[in-house]
Amino acid sequence: PSGLDFPVRELGRVLVMPGLVNAHSHAFQRAIRGKTHRRGEADPNSFWSWRDAMYAVALRLDPDEVYTLTRDCFAEMRASGITCVGEFHYLHHDPEGRPYAQPHRLSEAVISAARELGLRLTLLEVFYARAGAGLPPRPEQRRFCDASLEHFLARVEALREGEDPQLRIGIAPHSVRAVGRPALEQLARWRAGTDIPVHMHISEQVRENEECQAEHGLTPLGLVEACGLLDDPGRFTAVHAIHLEDADFERLRGQQVCACPSTEADLGDGIVLADRLHAGGVGLALGSDSNARIDLVLEGSALEMNLRLLRQARLCLGDAAQPSSAVVAGAATLGGGRALGWTHAGRLRVGVPFDAALFDLDDPLLRGLEGQEAFDALWMAGSSRACSQSWIDGVRRV
Amino acid sequence: PSGLDFPVRELGRVLVMPGLVNAHSHAFQRAIRGKTHRRGEADPNSFWSWRDAMYAVALRLDPDEVYTLTRDCFAEMRASGITCVGEFHYLHHDPEGRPYAQPHRLSEAVISAARELGLRLTLLEVFYARAGAGLPPRPEQRRFCDASLEHFLARVEALREGEDPQLRIGIAPHSVRAVGRPALEQLARWRAGTDIPVHMHISEQVRENEECQAEHGLTPLGLVEACGLLDDPGRFTAVHAIHLEDADFERLRGQQVCACPSTEADLGDGIVLADRLHAGGVGLALGSDSNARIDLVLEGSALEMNLRLLRQARLCLGDAAQPSSAVVAGAATLGGGRALGWTHAGRLRVGVPFDAALFDLDDPLLRGLEGQEAFDALWMAGSSRACSQSWIDGVRRV
Repeated sequence: PSGLDFPVRELGRVLVMPGLVNAHSHAFQRAIRGKTHRRGEADPNSFWSWRDAMYAVALRLDPDEVYTLTRDCFAEMRASGITCVGEFHYLHHDPEGRPYAQPHRLSEAVISAARELGLRLTLLEVFYARAGAGLPPRPEQRRFCDASLEHFLARVEALREGEDPQLRIGIAPHSVRAVGRPALEQLARWRAGTDIPVHMHISEQVRENEECQAEHGLTPLGLVEACGLLDDPGRFTAVHAIHLEDADFERLRGQQVCACPSTEADLGDGIVLADRLHAGGVGLALGSDSNARIDLVLEGSALEMNLRLLRQARLCLGDAAQPSSAVVAGAATLGGGRALGWTHAGRLRVGVPFDAALFDLDDPLLRGLEGQEAFDALWMAGSSRACSQSWIDGVRRV
Repeated sequence: PSGLDFPVRELGRVLVMPGLVNAHSHAFQRAIRGKTHRRGEADPNSFWSWRDAMYAVALRLDPDEVYTLTRDCFAEMRASGITCVGEFHYLHHDPEGRPYAQPHRLSEAVISAARELGLRLTLLEVFYARAGAGLPPRPEQRRFCDASLEHFLARVEALREGEDPQLRIGIAPHSVRAVGRPALEQLARWRAGTDIPVHMHISEQVRENEECQAEHGLTPLGLVEACGLLDDPGRFTAVHAIHLEDADFERLRGQQVCACPSTEADLGDGIVLADRLHAGGVGLALGSDSNARIDLVLEGSALEMNLRLLRQARLCLGDAAQPSSAVVAGAATLGGGRALGWTHAGRLRVGVPFDAALFDLDDPLLRGLEGQEAFDALWMAGSSRACSQSWIDGVRRV
């Protein structure tokens, strides 16, 4: 009721950030939060035994459960200031690996969950073909696998017809473990010259690198480069990218790395050398990955703080031009938007949709601080828990 | 109104934990939250430049400001489920180092702040004598220094007369940098056979170890042992204890280490090898230290997660008998209570005061989880932000 042709709103005493962009999520994994921290039988304390626990859940979900889990997980994201998510989606078929009568049923479940909440979504459709070099998929991986690369691409093409201002489709060859060289080359040719984002798990575990060397005589990024997936600048996002060789840092210049620090700690993966990546012209993004935690502010803080532990120094990501807080806040907004193929996500600018995360300056975290100091306290010592409002497309959603 | 001689209370759908014990705090440092993450002049990215920023604040505070800052910081602690705090207190005198007319004025400010909030307090009175081997205190350290060890002990004796069920007094030779060998020996003799807790910063930075070797030909813990401060089991708490040699782990058996993971990351200190300490019979406690963050649940989670990053494995603190979640929850409760000299703090048991932190099972963090799984989710992936009630001595305080 402002007498003007636009509404006038009182936002309160808040720090206004662009809506946070969660560039790497497996929403259904929220179902195993708190359920993987006790010793089981064999090999209890590795990434690979965690993966077995995760597979057990992945196998039992029906389409309604995928929808409900994803919606609830997305709701938790939205409440934490996330307004745009990249869902790295690999549940495609029924537990025996047979397509549903509606072949996009599970992808549609994810899309519906995002629409229900108003979240912007980049659905990263995963291609998964094998258990490793020369190995057919394990029974518990059959849900992830399409009958052929052509079937996969036909699904992607069909999903792309539904793209709109809330939805983008990208592709995600799962990892060098799960996809062989000919398929990677074919995917590179298929997407060449388009603006379709490509995401891939890269060098999360040392064993992945060893197996790739044994099969191809290349690092995972060396293989990806040889297949042509790095030909277009800015279209490739390497998720994790922890165990890199010198040449891998060069290969990534102009592309993105999505770090997921809390999952990478939980699973014993290791520390992303984000300082070296940032200095070497690699864009940074952040993801909640397994969704054991959903807190992109904490992920950003951990990106810097893990480097401080490793380097035994302070201000690792920052330089004279840009403090560490700005680097990690950029990763949680603009960097994620770029990785997910949005030109406006992660920006606050006249003429683009108002997606925003508002942080309460009266929260105990920020009490007594303003401006730059509040910003630094949020990103270096804070949490998404101080987010009091999420706005998407000019509408207050939380 | 239960018709019984005790009240009947409905606590709601909550996970009940013993009140959290924050075993290492410098409350006034809350004043520099968010203010040390940009590059200044010389040596911008080290512990030592951070310390200069902290000293600048320490120098300007008057007694009323010490009280207000401490009270506000303690209030933030109480809201996060902390019911008992160890304040490692080194602001004793006026900025020129002259005792106030009331010589305990700043210690009383801390005690009053805790009483105002109902928090249990162990006031760890710090002895500080020098800037390093053979160096008098720097001007900005004069506030911390007593005229002599006798003056210090007279202050401690006087403060001990005020001990009661809410207040304990301990002593804290600041570090091997700040206290020479004769004073450490004298302090050991003074406290021998008593139950007075002794806390000391130990091996936080590599430089401290190097200087100690140069001065004494010993590691910091080697010196502490040689001075007799480790003679009584369970009375000595080493704060940080990051850069340890093999013999140092042995020296600590039966004593405590207080880890402060978020501060230790912020300051580039390094990772506490808590798995090795725990396996070697060293008790663990947790502290919020610089109070840039106040979240003991996050500190507990980081204690385990930093080890996962370092070891590139999962379930580092746990074993078949006790999962990692229980080890870190124990550090945040019972372990802290032991370090601060309380027999009941950190316990829930009939016959001891009801100090408790209640975590809301309907919080997004814990939604869908109960019992053991909620406990594991809280301590491995959670935050004190899910704390909805703090009880001290049977009274609901938040």
